[in-house]
Amino acid sequence: MSTFLDWLAERAADRDRQGLRREVRPFKSGELVDLAGNDYLGLRRHPAVIAGAVAAAETYGGGAGASRLVTGTLELHEELEHALARLTGAPSALVLSTGYHANLAVLTSLADAETLIVSDAHAHASLIDGARLSRAAVAVSRHNDLDHVRELLAGRTQPRAVVVVESVYSVLGDAAPLGALADLSQELGAVLVVDDAHGLGVVGERGEGGAAQAGIIARDHVVVTVTLSKSLAAQGGAVLAHAAVRDHLVNTGRPFIYDTGLAPAAAGAALGALDVLATDAHLPAAVRANAALLADACGVDTPAGAVLSVTMPGPAEALAAVAVAEERGIRIGCFRPPSTPDGSSRLRLTAHADHGPEVLDHALDVLRGLVTRA
Amino acid sequence: MSTFLDWLAERAADRDRQGLRREVRPFKSGELVDLAGNDYLGLRRHPAVIAGAVAAAETYGGGAGASRLVTGTLELHEELEHALARLTGAPSALVLSTGYHANLAVLTSLADAETLIVSDAHAHASLIDGARLSRAAVAVSRHNDLDHVRELLAGRTQPRAVVVVESVYSVLGDAAPLGALADLSQELGAVLVVDDAHGLGVVGERGEGGAAQAGIIARDHVVVTVTLSKSLAAQGGAVLAHAAVRDHLVNTGRPFIYDTGLAPAAAGAALGALDVLATDAHLPAAVRANAALLADACGVDTPAGAVLSVTMPGPAEALAAVAVAEERGIRIGCFRPPSTPDGSSRLRLTAHADHGPEVLDHALDVLRGLVTRA
Ligand SMILES: Cc1ncc(COP(=O)(O)O)c(C=O)c1O
Ligand SMILES: Cc1ncc(COP(=O)(O)O)c(C=O)c1O
Repeated sequence: MSTFLDWLAERAADRDRQGLRREVRPFKSGELVDLAGNDYLGLRRHPAVIAGAVAAAETYGGGAGASRLVTGTLELHEELEHALARLTGAPSALVLSTGYHANLAVLTSLADAETLIVSDAHAHASLIDGARLSRAAVAVSRHNDLDHVRELLAGRTQPRAVVVVESVYSVLGDAAPLGALADLSQELGAVLVVDDAHGLGVVGERGEGGAAQAGIIARDHVVVTVTLSKSLAAQGGAVLAHAAVRDHLVNTGRPFIYDTGLAPAAAGAALGALDVLATDAHLPAAVRANAALLADACGVDTPAGAVLSVTMPGPAEALAAVAVAEERGIRIGCFRPPSTPDGSSRLRLTAHADHGPEVLDHALDVLRGLVTRA
Repeated sequence: MSTFLDWLAERAADRDRQGLRREVRPFKSGELVDLAGNDYLGLRRHPAVIAGAVAAAETYGGGAGASRLVTGTLELHEELEHALARLTGAPSALVLSTGYHANLAVLTSLADAETLIVSDAHAHASLIDGARLSRAAVAVSRHNDLDHVRELLAGRTQPRAVVVVESVYSVLGDAAPLGALADLSQELGAVLVVDDAHGLGVVGERGEGGAAQAGIIARDHVVVTVTLSKSLAAQGGAVLAHAAVRDHLVNTGRPFIYDTGLAPAAAGAALGALDVLATDAHLPAAVRANAALLADACGVDTPAGAVLSVTMPGPAEALAAVAVAEERGIRIGCFRPPSTPDGSSRLRLTAHADHGPEVLDHALDVLRGLVTRA
């Protein structure tokens, strides 16, 4: 039997052999243009967002101090829940401390051993973990393949079913056919869970998100999860659904019940971002316009939201492209096996509403060069 | 097949029949004395904690903007990791966005299908969820029973093993025999995971926590998790361990990798609390002294940390005690079946360093009355 440190060293050596070693190092904005992060509306340093965080910390303190059901529910949490419902048109909202928690809570509370979860092949890690934790049977549907979803739902032996998709896929950047999925789910007696993490703030005239834009957010069998950490420039997550779902989660969602309430400053920052979104009506259109320019420079289709995916010939080419971009002052993301579900290698780029012509022109120039190289 | 709303309504009716309906309502401090929350050092509204949150939001913005491995690692995260390692004497620290995430990441990264997890019967929900997610075999050991842990470890068929305990148990408030557990784990080739959520800031001369006080925090096979949301008055979690464990988590910990970095204000608030702890050396002793007074009033043994557990004859008596306390201006916690692993009903009370004689004397008076009643 090897010791623990030997075991860790073997794992590290495996990663090194595969060229997969990852390290965390601080990202200093100012040094590089960020075409990799998820601050889509560019609100992280917006005065209203910072003011929201500051005011909340001053009023409520550093943390919530307890779980929501003990003494950790603040009036600020309720304000935020109302504001999220208002923007999206959802019947109710429940705030959790991360988007990851929101997905874990929804799937573990709504699915059980008598449930089939039909999960899209490109679903996010937090959805996959939630499905595993739920003890439900899990079937993976081919990406955005309605016929496959129908086949899996219709052939199930379980009395209950939950279909799991993202409004805008976090790596591929494409959109799910939400209207058709909602109809199909209803027809076959399934709940539809939509992770709108990359849709909120970006998709829809007012940034109301993918589920709202598709007109499905108020349907009884639709449950939407969002994060406050991307367009809303803060931290946290929320579940948007029928009030009966909210009540069910409050009573059964372990990642809600056994977790400290969201910190005041994060809630305040998200509220600040929601205010900006309500007044600066051009932001969602601005980020989508920038995404269209980036897509054009990369020779790919205009994406549904702010995320672009560019397929590369292989992992070496993808890594080389990232390195060239970095030399020229631009940070882009990169996905390669084994972290891509289909074994492909690709670049992930994100558009930001606050990138003005100067920054953007340079980025477009760099990207055109990269794509020619590949 | 019932509809989704019918299914939810049946679940709610079940809860109502069992008298288990829970609702979230805002807690307004000032109205009630909080003997239920986990702000043990009373630092939530400390000027240094608020100033830390404010400065971080002003410098870094509302959120981290991306996952730690993309562009979401801030210098502030590294500062916080160093400060946590300094206080506890841990070889390295990795910050995550909740304590729940820290436990999920540790167990899913360190345990697999070839591992036996031996988990204490009173382990927290986040540890149980992490064990389930890991795909390891899980054996539950009787609470604080070293012989049972030995028996389970020695009888295992899996090559690897992980023992899971809390330094101070979140509901019972008692301490695990950490030194003996570390020796036993080493002897039998197991990793020891210690959740120090309720020890950090409270246990030890300087609030260095249970693992540090037991002198085990720097041992190779010991992995400690903490939360920033209790004594440190913020939000977030951390893993304290050998640098090779940190590196392993950065590369394999899904709840770390696929999650947005901790919000700046939360990191700043926790750093503020660590500063206060370093200068106001009396705080850990103050909270323990208040805990001893509460224990005396309740007729139970002085607890290891700030959490007291008072066994009640039944659920009705526990609920009645909570109601009486509330009438007299005091909020206490209550646990009853099915949320207690042993079917008991009990009150959970927490001590706070900032409760001065006036507040405390009244609380003690109320508690003496409650215990007589029971
Ligand atoms: C699709 C999707 N869902 C959920 C999450 C988790 O959100 P959070 O970072 O708030 O935990 C992310 C990314 O972080 C995501 O991309
Ligand atoms: C023992 C224990 N571990 C972990 C956690 C989770 O920490 P957090 O609230 O930071 O997610 C808690 C409580 O919330 C706890 O009591």
